[in-house]
Amino acid sequence: MDILSVIEHKKKKMALTKEEIRFFVQGAAEGTLPDYQLAALLMAIRLNGMDMQETACLTDCMARSGAMLQPDVGGIPLDKHSTGGVGDTTTLVLAPLVAACGGKVLKMSGRGLGHTGGTVDKLESIPGMQVELDEETFVNIVRQVGCCVVGQSKNLAPADKRLYALRDVTGTVDSVPLIASSILSKKFASGAKAIVLDVKVGSGALMPTLQDAVHLAQTMVQIGKILSRPVSCVISGMEEPLGSHVGNALEVKEAVEILQGKVQGPLKDVALFLGSRMLINAGLCENEQEANDKLTAAIENGAGLAKLKEMIKAQGGLPDVCDDVSLLPTAPCIRPVLAKESGWLAATDGVALGMAAQKMGAGRMTKDDIIDPAVGFIMKKRIGDRVEKGDEIAILHASGAASADEAEKNILSALTFSPSAPSPARLIYALVDEKGIQEIHL
Amino acid sequence: MDILSVIEHKKKKMALTKEEIRFFVQGAAEGTLPDYQLAALLMAIRLNGMDMQETACLTDCMARSGAMLQPDVGGIPLDKHSTGGVGDTTTLVLAPLVAACGGKVLKMSGRGLGHTGGTVDKLESIPGMQVELDEETFVNIVRQVGCCVVGQSKNLAPADKRLYALRDVTGTVDSVPLIASSILSKKFASGAKAIVLDVKVGSGALMPTLQDAVHLAQTMVQIGKILSRPVSCVISGMEEPLGSHVGNALEVKEAVEILQGKVQGPLKDVALFLGSRMLINAGLCENEQEANDKLTAAIENGAGLAKLKEMIKAQGGLPDVCDDVSLLPTAPCIRPVLAKESGWLAATDGVALGMAAQKMGAGRMTKDDIIDPAVGFIMKKRIGDRVEKGDEIAILHASGAASADEAEKNILSALTFSPSAPSPARLIYALVDEKGIQEIHL
Repeated sequence: MDILSVIEHKKKKMALTKEEIRFFVQGAAEGTLPDYQLAALLMAIRLNGMDMQETACLTDCMARSGAMLQPDVGGIPLDKHSTGGVGDTTTLVLAPLVAACGGKVLKMSGRGLGHTGGTVDKLESIPGMQVELDEETFVNIVRQVGCCVVGQSKNLAPADKRLYALRDVTGTVDSVPLIASSILSKKFASGAKAIVLDVKVGSGALMPTLQDAVHLAQTMVQIGKILSRPVSCVISGMEEPLGSHVGNALEVKEAVEILQGKVQGPLKDVALFLGSRMLINAGLCENEQEANDKLTAAIENGAGLAKLKEMIKAQGGLPDVCDDVSLLPTAPCIRPVLAKESGWLAATDGVALGMAAQKMGAGRMTKDDIIDPAVGFIMKKRIGDRVEKGDEIAILHASGAASADEAEKNILSALTFSPSAPSPARLIYALVDEKGIQEIHL
Repeated sequence: MDILSVIEHKKKKMALTKEEIRFFVQGAAEGTLPDYQLAALLMAIRLNGMDMQETACLTDCMARSGAMLQPDVGGIPLDKHSTGGVGDTTTLVLAPLVAACGGKVLKMSGRGLGHTGGTVDKLESIPGMQVELDEETFVNIVRQVGCCVVGQSKNLAPADKRLYALRDVTGTVDSVPLIASSILSKKFASGAKAIVLDVKVGSGALMPTLQDAVHLAQTMVQIGKILSRPVSCVISGMEEPLGSHVGNALEVKEAVEILQGKVQGPLKDVALFLGSRMLINAGLCENEQEANDKLTAAIENGAGLAKLKEMIKAQGGLPDVCDDVSLLPTAPCIRPVLAKESGWLAATDGVALGMAAQKMGAGRMTKDDIIDPAVGFIMKKRIGDRVEKGDEIAILHASGAASADEAEKNILSALTFSPSAPSPARLIYALVDEKGIQEIHL
């Protein structure tokens, strides 16, 4: 077997054999193949595609390229993954709720990338919180508490790490087989047996159109079927930030307030929908209604918040933030953004809002940047809301006046007003699983 | 400008702008762009193509990526290039003949690659012959003698050098825009103003089908037109070795014997056809007939042979080989290959015959191998010939008995006999130039 013949076959649009896929994935993981040959192969895959069997095989080989965890967590290991949103902190809401309902949530999460936030960065805004744990500690916490959220382990799916880094600099990110296999290989390697994926759709998302998003979702469901690990995909919009809070400590605060039962809205709705799928996939609930009732009860009786406290404590963090959110880092410059015109909020540019927070210091411009956990903003209006001139549109949490001025300009230019009432943005479009596609109106 | 957006555009099948092409070619030449990004771009070009304007621009940018010779050779600098044949030593026949007719042949040539021979390797079989000359000496010889053949200068088209090396290991050799720009950029950088290209077609050629070969030829003619340097392409077959001699010193011997007027046959015919095009393109002859007559006269009156002697002398070689070919290196083991059956020689596998010579030591298996100038073989039969059992099919010139045994086996298995008379192989299929495609029966 040699890499040139593998490249040659994909260049000629042939399906690669299992041996060919295993060969290049191992070569990527072990460093025996040079970047330039992998880059040529990735571009050939991007342009000529891969069929479902090839994609499943690629996923399996990447998962097996490093350690394969077989975690004994006292139940079916559950995982949830989002393709990347703005103001989207569903993980911090649903992980404790699902744990409170008996689920075992084993979550390796990423850091913020570009305009999208990362759960690990958000958790690090909690004083003392450790997100780099060894595998044994990680699994123990899941077994004892029911949930644990840590950074991606370096031992898992090393082939994916190498190929992902290469895709990022060779224009080969936007390939459904490569995206699907990258996402699922890490999940399978971490030992997850039932997986709920949140596939974002919209102008700032990895998948710009609903058709693309459905295609990615169907691909991942099929891979799960071929490799015997149930996968459900929720297709959700990212026209505007999911929660009202954008920024690391601010998003933790919003998650806590939802678990306290104080806050309603889209972030809670989507978190409950995703959490329901996890309980159903784990066999802990029969149907949507039962799952939703259990999760809602876990908010009302405080069991979810208690789980979050337990998890924070187990990970070395200050659990008191769950009772008093003012213990989270706070920004020195807090001030409102006021509407300069009246009208209906017709559209928001989610990417621009994410980038506004990133520029404030909530995200990284380059991978070595240090995040300011306190900064960000709270949106006071959503698409479909009526706004009068002078109304508070957002509250800035900035590191200083200059940053606040820049953020105000960026936020205002991300909003479009119309003279008539528009329909509110769709939160969830569809659920894709082994049964097919089910349209969801949320 | 950044390389990712260039990759992105070609990935989406857009035509690259002149600025984009100049950017990546400069980055390749100067080493500011990494191999993996160039590899991804090359694969995108291989799969999504380039239009004629892009290809001409790529050729021009690669030519200008290093030194651009403006040689004062006392006439129009002429060049001839073959895409690589077996037993094809037309350069050694036509360069002195064209020089004898007043042409100025400025030829940078390659070394043998795989099963195809290289003119520079052949010349080095002449005792003392220097093929690595500085540019001034090279140009002076062309001006004084009328022809000079040297190895490719390292200063010319460095972008092509980098991209070619990368194409070779990333499965991106077989791309018409990349082949055409690679061939012509070197010619343009060396200062050639009128170029005749010999595009080989057949199973062992870069272009396996006639359609592919015509497409490559038309592309190169168009590039020449856009960049104002006349290019003519001859499309010739490589079903069997062009000359009867295969091997370095053996091919020099055959070229000398043609110039001595002792040998007729396909190698002479094709060399005269290509040489005619060179004289016509240089404006030294009006038409085919006049050019052919002049070249034939230069054989008959010995002017061509005299030019070859002059060139060899100017390049430090022993000109006496032109009078006494036994001064060339000779192999210790010379013996015939006899036919094991009777019949008509219906087909020969040109690649297999080239590889048989390569294995004898006439070519390199890896680029560091040292060539044995003396070895090879002389074919005594051509496609269409009647062969009786026991007839001499070939004469081996081997380094020893074991090598001869292996070569005998390889040669015999490359031949196919039939019970009825087949038609002889086509030497030349067509001439492609600015006037269009003209079918040639030779």
